[in-house]
Amino acid sequence: MTKQTVDILLTNGYLVTMDNRMSLYPNGTVAIKDNLIVALGPSDDLEATYEATTVIDCQNCIISPGLINAHTHVPMTLLRGLADDLRLDVWLYGYMMPVEREFVGPQFCYIGTLLGCAEMIRSGVTTFCDMYYNEAEVARATVEAGMRAVLGQTILKFPSPDASNYDESLAYCRRFIEEWRDHPLIIPAVAPHAPYTATPDMLQNCVTLATEFDVPLHIHVAETALEQENSVSQYGTTVVSWLEQYNLFRAKVIAAHCVHLHDNEMRTLYHYRAGVAHCPSSNLKLASGTAPVQKLVDLGLHVGIGTDGPASNNDLDMFEETRLAAFLQKGVFGDPTLLPAKTTWALATIEGARAVHIDHLTGSLEPGKRADLSVIAMANTHQLPRFARDPEAVYSQLVYATKATDVRDVIVDGRVLMRNRELLTLNETDIIAEAEQIARRIDAFLTAREGNILSKLLAISTDFIPQETFEIQVKLRLPELIDINEVFSEAGIETYRHSSRDQYDTYFLFEDPEAGRLRFREDEVKNERGELQETFYTMTLMGPTVEKEFENSVLLTRARYTASANQSLRFYREYFKPKAEQEVVKKRRRCHISYKDTDFAINLDQPSGAEAGNVYLEIKSRTWSAKDALRKAELIGELLEKFQVKADSQLKVEYVDLVTQA
Amino acid sequence: MTKQTVDILLTNGYLVTMDNRMSLYPNGTVAIKDNLIVALGPSDDLEATYEATTVIDCQNCIISPGLINAHTHVPMTLLRGLADDLRLDVWLYGYMMPVEREFVGPQFCYIGTLLGCAEMIRSGVTTFCDMYYNEAEVARATVEAGMRAVLGQTILKFPSPDASNYDESLAYCRRFIEEWRDHPLIIPAVAPHAPYTATPDMLQNCVTLATEFDVPLHIHVAETALEQENSVSQYGTTVVSWLEQYNLFRAKVIAAHCVHLHDNEMRTLYHYRAGVAHCPSSNLKLASGTAPVQKLVDLGLHVGIGTDGPASNNDLDMFEETRLAAFLQKGVFGDPTLLPAKTTWALATIEGARAVHIDHLTGSLEPGKRADLSVIAMANTHQLPRFARDPEAVYSQLVYATKATDVRDVIVDGRVLMRNRELLTLNETDIIAEAEQIARRIDAFLTAREGNILSKLLAISTDFIPQETFEIQVKLRLPELIDINEVFSEAGIETYRHSSRDQYDTYFLFEDPEAGRLRFREDEVKNERGELQETFYTMTLMGPTVEKEFENSVLLTRARYTASANQSLRFYREYFKPKAEQEVVKKRRRCHISYKDTDFAINLDQPSGAEAGNVYLEIKSRTWSAKDALRKAELIGELLEKFQVKADSQLKVEYVDLVTQA
Repeated sequence: MTKQTVDILLTNGYLVTMDNRMSLYPNGTVAIKDNLIVALGPSDDLEATYEATTVIDCQNCIISPGLINAHTHVPMTLLRGLADDLRLDVWLYGYMMPVEREFVGPQFCYIGTLLGCAEMIRSGVTTFCDMYYNEAEVARATVEAGMRAVLGQTILKFPSPDASNYDESLAYCRRFIEEWRDHPLIIPAVAPHAPYTATPDMLQNCVTLATEFDVPLHIHVAETALEQENSVSQYGTTVVSWLEQYNLFRAKVIAAHCVHLHDNEMRTLYHYRAGVAHCPSSNLKLASGTAPVQKLVDLGLHVGIGTDGPASNNDLDMFEETRLAAFLQKGVFGDPTLLPAKTTWALATIEGARAVHIDHLTGSLEPGKRADLSVIAMANTHQLPRFARDPEAVYSQLVYATKATDVRDVIVDGRVLMRNRELLTLNETDIIAEAEQIARRIDAFLTAREGNILSKLLAISTDFIPQETFEIQVKLRLPELIDINEVFSEAGIETYRHSSRDQYDTYFLFEDPEAGRLRFREDEVKNERGELQETFYTMTLMGPTVEKEFENSVLLTRARYTASANQSLRFYREYFKPKAEQEVVKKRRRCHISYKDTDFAINLDQPSGAEAGNVYLEIKSRTWSAKDALRKAELIGELLEKFQVKADSQLKVEYVDLVTQA
Repeated sequence: MTKQTVDILLTNGYLVTMDNRMSLYPNGTVAIKDNLIVALGPSDDLEATYEATTVIDCQNCIISPGLINAHTHVPMTLLRGLADDLRLDVWLYGYMMPVEREFVGPQFCYIGTLLGCAEMIRSGVTTFCDMYYNEAEVARATVEAGMRAVLGQTILKFPSPDASNYDESLAYCRRFIEEWRDHPLIIPAVAPHAPYTATPDMLQNCVTLATEFDVPLHIHVAETALEQENSVSQYGTTVVSWLEQYNLFRAKVIAAHCVHLHDNEMRTLYHYRAGVAHCPSSNLKLASGTAPVQKLVDLGLHVGIGTDGPASNNDLDMFEETRLAAFLQKGVFGDPTLLPAKTTWALATIEGARAVHIDHLTGSLEPGKRADLSVIAMANTHQLPRFARDPEAVYSQLVYATKATDVRDVIVDGRVLMRNRELLTLNETDIIAEAEQIARRIDAFLTAREGNILSKLLAISTDFIPQETFEIQVKLRLPELIDINEVFSEAGIETYRHSSRDQYDTYFLFEDPEAGRLRFREDEVKNERGELQETFYTMTLMGPTVEKEFENSVLLTRARYTASANQSLRFYREYFKPKAEQEVVKKRRRCHISYKDTDFAINLDQPSGAEAGNVYLEIKSRTWSAKDALRKAELIGELLEKFQVKADSQLKVEYVDLVTQA
């Protein structure tokens, strides 16, 4: 009998098929022709039937379906280790987003993907599910590496590194889908980033696009408790219900994270056959929590495992991720029988394929499926000894005692991508050189920024116009509270634009006084009845010194940069890491006057704390030139004479200096 | 100027010293002479001063103090993957302890330690802190491998694999200390296993021994919530307070786990300068919880990181353990700034050395300390790119992106144990062959046991005498409740030893009916006033079939094996994994009679459930031979005629069969 010729025979391996019966063949062979698995089974049978041009002996190795990395942002390999041990907002708004705005583009995404693919192939991953920018470049690199991928082009309601608005992103995404949808390795997808970065209109456009081309829709869902809280307070409903309102689940959804779900949300996801991508490392590292994976699995949901981006992990190692998934369910939900090894290996392979909606192609070793698999050494020191009593101990060995570096060979779509740990499709030396070059540029950018408080402030301020303003001002301590209207009326000057407010200032002080200091101010503006009318927050960078002193001791204070503060005080504290902090609290009455066609602001301040009981009067005006400053100093001198305020003393420092000196 | 000659120069490495100033030398050199670090610093300086016979270029590598595995049971490498995903009691009493009783001895401990050392050297560990049996054998293997170790000889209040009582263990431990205390690599220690496996007398003996020789005392402390609960209910105080009562902390204590501590217990540990060994993987895998490590660190406690035994981990990989320690604090305690990378690397090195009381020897790169260090590649694909902006990013790279397999060279006590990932002191092939041989024997033992319910029962029953008993019996359904005394009195027979009880039976049914079935019985024995007097639990293995039928339909039931059940029903369920279960609940009145010098038990049973309302009378007697059985069958026939009970029908099956058939 003539043997049938195939391209590759993997012989004498321990086959872990992950098929519907979870078949195991302790001495098995896989036959591959073109990009398909054509047969598998006991080695004796297969070797009698097939011959191949390439025969790979897999003795002492497991042959498993390749791992499915169900959620990642692959180009972020280039941001690995850039900033760690930070709170989510500081990490994201302080580091990731400013650097992405500056550096992310086609070349970044291309090189980052090549680096990520090299790492993933080395750790037995054959398919990944991405969400990032410039996905056409991610696709180009993925195909070059020879990997399979579900690639989601990110859509955001605000400008992103590859689009100035979501219409542009949607148009890009449509072109991307049209270009790549027939590629044997690439499954394009639409990726509205998250409910909280989407508008209903944007979401509906994404669903329309995904259903028109029948491609998956990849989205972050309920990653943090805060996201759920905000959803309920803003929209009156939980995250998944809100998404359901806009028919999101008409598309084939891949929901990443799902850490904080209510029971009815889990049922909704199940009802619509949405896939879930569990990212245990990232959820721990960013302190988001732990998804109830066993519960989701018990409900019948398809859950895959993902590394998330390498900036929050900090690697793409699916072996670590899989092991952690099992450990974490047991430890966090208090039951060591949760997520046993067999179930966990299924999540990393066939369930992952189901979760990202491509189990018709990959995820298990079965005739007719694409040849996506890895050959994993099973006789290294840290894996031994092995016990043969329970055939299912092989899953335990894979999940609990095997490392990414035990992966020996990787095949995707019938093509050998790694053989004896040597990458066959990628030139790692070149990729690393390019990656290091980009890292040097990011380093330079951040070093410059971190060395300068203004640059750090600029990096996180979207509405900030970096304009220096100078003020000319005088500050007097009064013996008692006065009525400003009365005092100025008596001097023949009308006051206008009155306001009253409580001001809570926190000053950040730095090692080098020349660096200036930052003021975080909470302004509680009161109406005429003394009720809270409005609260606003500003962040001001103040120059350290007084520039000049005029007659009558009018002072010219130096540069100030002010922006509205849309983050919390805690955020700024962790972002700027001040050496010390100082609080100043005061009641301020403010009005404006016009004197000789020049506008002056008048503040009557009553500080709390050490300065309690004191009353200060400030007269100030902005100025732009030396000549203008001189004129305004003269005018302030005239004003002081004119209304003859009886002052105890003149103050040449800021309130914060009074407190700091005390 | 002549250069000073040393033995080894490690040049051009990135020195992460972990000294008190946490000094970093981006291009540094370490000079080693004999077993000591004699100097370290910038490469230019060192190379101008020193020359060496062995120069190792460490370009693109980090040189770090070797990792300290602060708590493990190294010989348990030989039990790796034997049984996973089980609850602690099933794992421990069902698998670990029976196998240890059977297999653990000098050879097991020697081979297991060699295998463990091979794995640990490969992952950059230079010192481990052990607790197991036959520690002299562990010491012998450790010295052969060239590693440093704190070796705690286990002391238990009950028989252990290497001693029949704790006096024997203490005597062994004394000899062990005397023999090894002057060895340059070995620090012998006393290891009372845990508070709950100790008596006060035993603990006091351990403390005396540890203080006499000034060696560490290694003990498990507050690993589970149950341990704390039991301590409070049994002793009226928490675990650490109970230990303090017996002066445990007069010794240099290494407290492993410390998952469930009250605040005052933490302060007690701090007060006595006890070290803590944190084992995140094991605590997750066995669902014990997560120790509040950041809190302990903030209190000033020295906390090290340990892998625990490879049977509950399932490896000795300190890189995984260190990464998990950082992730877990963030995720479980909800703050991503907890255990930052720098602190975590300290726990794995210098703090670990402090925790196990040997920081005068090792744990940091400092002149005068023993040369215990590892050279770790820092330019592999999964570690790149690197950012130079923040010099402390090197800790982040080590903790978050470096794997055990990135360790290139390992030196302990000035001796090179691994060079370019080749082990220089151990023959892995031989060790693995020996380990696999032991594994085959354990496999055979467990396969035999698991294939037979009686063997499985025997494996977990310490008070169990495996004796078959046969019973001859008849069972009649009565039309109504009768008074046994009256019935037998009328027949001229006295009854004695009356009792009344509620019986709750759970039957485990197996795939193969020939395997028999197991009955877990809870007997609530009542006093004469019907109050609960005593509850006892028995586990009975019952043969499947009736052996023989006599005249009057007297039945001979087959073998029964009975033992007292000292585990929970849940334990037996998870251990025996029955195919199905059946409950039988009944009230039983029992008395005994003597008829023609033969003892018979009489049961009057009122079942609940489907059989509620029925009354059954049983007459039974144990029998040992066919002749005896025949005689007793005749006597039962006579009794039935004699007192003429009016029976509806005779029952030829057990109650459980009535329920199962229904």
